[in-house]
Amino acid sequence: MVERKRIVEDLRKILGRESVEDDELTIKLYSRDAAYIEGSALAVVFPKSTDEVSALLSYAYRRDLKIYPQGSTSELVGSSTPSDDGVILSLSRMNRIKEYSVVDMYAIAEPGVRLVELNEVLAEVGYMFPIDPASVKSATVGGAINSGAGGMMGLRYGTMKDAVLGLEVVLPDEKGTVLRLGGRTTKYRAGYDLIRLIVGSEGTLAVVTEATLKIVPIPENIVSIAAFFPSLDDLVNAVVELKRRGINLYIAEFLDSQTVDAAKVMKPRIQGEGNLLIISVDIAREAADRMLLMLEEIMKENNASAVFKASSMKEAEEMGIFDMRRGFYPASIKIAAERRRDVERRSIFFIEDISVPPSRLAECVKRIRDLAEKHNVNITLGGHIGDGNLHPNVWFEEGDEEGKRRALEFLDELMKLAIELDGTISSEHGIGTTKKEFLLMEMERKEGLKALEIMKEIKRAFDPKGILNPGKLW
Amino acid sequence: MVERKRIVEDLRKILGRESVEDDELTIKLYSRDAAYIEGSALAVVFPKSTDEVSALLSYAYRRDLKIYPQGSTSELVGSSTPSDDGVILSLSRMNRIKEYSVVDMYAIAEPGVRLVELNEVLAEVGYMFPIDPASVKSATVGGAINSGAGGMMGLRYGTMKDAVLGLEVVLPDEKGTVLRLGGRTTKYRAGYDLIRLIVGSEGTLAVVTEATLKIVPIPENIVSIAAFFPSLDDLVNAVVELKRRGINLYIAEFLDSQTVDAAKVMKPRIQGEGNLLIISVDIAREAADRMLLMLEEIMKENNASAVFKASSMKEAEEMGIFDMRRGFYPASIKIAAERRRDVERRSIFFIEDISVPPSRLAECVKRIRDLAEKHNVNITLGGHIGDGNLHPNVWFEEGDEEGKRRALEFLDELMKLAIELDGTISSEHGIGTTKKEFLLMEMERKEGLKALEIMKEIKRAFDPKGILNPGKLW
Repeated sequence: MVERKRIVEDLRKILGRESVEDDELTIKLYSRDAAYIEGSALAVVFPKSTDEVSALLSYAYRRDLKIYPQGSTSELVGSSTPSDDGVILSLSRMNRIKEYSVVDMYAIAEPGVRLVELNEVLAEVGYMFPIDPASVKSATVGGAINSGAGGMMGLRYGTMKDAVLGLEVVLPDEKGTVLRLGGRTTKYRAGYDLIRLIVGSEGTLAVVTEATLKIVPIPENIVSIAAFFPSLDDLVNAVVELKRRGINLYIAEFLDSQTVDAAKVMKPRIQGEGNLLIISVDIAREAADRMLLMLEEIMKENNASAVFKASSMKEAEEMGIFDMRRGFYPASIKIAAERRRDVERRSIFFIEDISVPPSRLAECVKRIRDLAEKHNVNITLGGHIGDGNLHPNVWFEEGDEEGKRRALEFLDELMKLAIELDGTISSEHGIGTTKKEFLLMEMERKEGLKALEIMKEIKRAFDPKGILNPGKLW
Repeated sequence: MVERKRIVEDLRKILGRESVEDDELTIKLYSRDAAYIEGSALAVVFPKSTDEVSALLSYAYRRDLKIYPQGSTSELVGSSTPSDDGVILSLSRMNRIKEYSVVDMYAIAEPGVRLVELNEVLAEVGYMFPIDPASVKSATVGGAINSGAGGMMGLRYGTMKDAVLGLEVVLPDEKGTVLRLGGRTTKYRAGYDLIRLIVGSEGTLAVVTEATLKIVPIPENIVSIAAFFPSLDDLVNAVVELKRRGINLYIAEFLDSQTVDAAKVMKPRIQGEGNLLIISVDIAREAADRMLLMLEEIMKENNASAVFKASSMKEAEEMGIFDMRRGFYPASIKIAAERRRDVERRSIFFIEDISVPPSRLAECVKRIRDLAEKHNVNITLGGHIGDGNLHPNVWFEEGDEEGKRRALEFLDELMKLAIELDGTISSEHGIGTTKKEFLLMEMERKEGLKALEIMKEIKRAFDPKGILNPGKLW
């Protein structure tokens, strides 16, 4: 207790009184993530500059103090959860968009800038930052970098790993060394790529204090089609045919039929029976009709029933083509609430995040449904079919130990299934604390254990005392 | 000598007699790269499988034997040059395309597969692997990975760092550990990204024995325009206007006016006076005319004289729109030959590879020309204006020590200029041996020296004895 008081006083000397909070409520607020994984901490600090972060890390190094960097804590795997003997480092007050250039196609932002804010500014000049996690409204630049975020447009633009040109980071060493990596150009060679090592490192290597991000022009026109398929095989066959014809898909999303039924509680504007496929293609206005006809033909050849077409993004939004896909999470929550046995209890969700090669998707979805039946758990199921990224959601009621056990057994088999089908246990959500065992399992099965040893040595090279976000990844 | 004999005998026992060559001619052939940087070696080995590579590295580890992995040695910075106490590991006999899938959008290839071969196979199904270094006809998958290659389409598709989904590598440790990293899906999270650490590592971390590469559909249609501008400012202003209008450029290349003059020795089919800009945009056939009109308008508004338009790639090839850009290197060599004072002597080229943000390009080119004048060196100058990647070529006659000194002084100032203009000393060619000092300079000037220390620790984690391609990078 005395120790804690001294640390808080030291932090106030370093960062100023207004940048250090140690009241219980603030700490509680910053100690849990979007999956309700909770921790505690000695204090929350809000530095306003790189120099302050540097002073903080230098102090932490000398005092062996654990530091937990944080964006908006919208992550889902416990990667931002602190421990009670550590300090939460919120980057929320470093939130300036420093500059951007459409000619040079980059934007420079501090870590606390929310992706949605960045895109509002860029939209004015016809550009965007194309990484769009579902949490895009709250997710920050720093958080997205550290969690290696992806999204619906991952099929075209990849993930954060493909989108960071340069970084300024602070190292957890004696001096709190400030390191500038990369630059402002796409092509950049300077020895080993430390930038992409930090992207996706879940705050365990260095604290990002500035990022130079690759930006792209907003496509001139995007056509979209939504179609409902009686069977998953039909839906996957339609996707196979799209790829076979070399159509350069912009977005390709799906929900399985049981999830489509469930999503109806959200009153989506387009409705149909069966498995939902949504396809967007960026194409010039003059060719919109041709493309839509071709897409429609492919859908119908593969037994689609209801088909909805939009020749522009504006029209797609007016028709509500994305309603069901966007309503995926809210619908899951609503269904969970409706099926709840005890209304006093909230539902605890696992929002899962496996990938399999898209050609294995029909098999994967069927086997996931079988697993859900076997373990008697409720699930909803959809995701990014273009890149094979599935988000099965499973839940149980708080306090229902039997339900929790069943959910965990389901997850265990789900992960094994992903690995069996040449896929992966984590695609864009990360490892954090909840997937440490699954990462180990995947590494074991893929002749990758030595990789974990190398990663631990890399961790030591950046963070010799292990004070930065400890307890994550392994 | 006895030592050498024993090593060669051991290697023959491990790999078979037919996979080990130790005659002088073979060694000489494999000991120099495309920039004529030469070394020597004890032997050249040609393993045919991952197991053989593993056995070789295990032997090398136990014997402290240096190993120099090699693709087609088309690199330009000495990164594949061996030392006389080491063994050249040629991956040329591991050259199978193992599988590919247009549905899952990947191709799996051994390191010795040439990029051009891969693209021939993929073209049959309407797909391509989009990383296209100038050496694409000889460059191999393994070489391109290790040198982090880029190319003309880097503006759209990035470099090798953006194109590798999975790797099988062999580590230079006691067992010759085989490590499988990543997978077959774009989205992949498994702790730190070791794949992108190995891409661009110039053969210093691990030997790549298999790669899973991201493939993309060949665009349906591509329009192109070539225009000649009286001044560089005009040319850059045209590019600025293209970006400002949000046109999603596919290719954007340029040659400066003196290089355009020089390139005429190659008898290009399109000709004009001034600085050459070539723009390609992928757009549906129906919109080709509209796009070409817009491009033409922007060129003319910025004082372009001769303008050449092609509404498809086929037409562009028939017209010879890319002749001058492709003839850039051959033209440089021809000019060098013509200006040679001693016909017996060959010309030694430095094919340089800096980047600056495209908005700084006009300034950069002018200052490069001033530097060339100051140091009295011949240069040609062009590159990828879309991503700011410039390739100034400078040469001197073999044996002309004075000319060499002037070329080196020019290069030294060129690198300082790149750094001053927020650019980088290497974009897609790497560091090898020729740019070690410049890398150090760049790191020093950008607060990045600590990064070098971290890189060295990473090197130790992969290669504790330092036997893999030693002497490169630093």
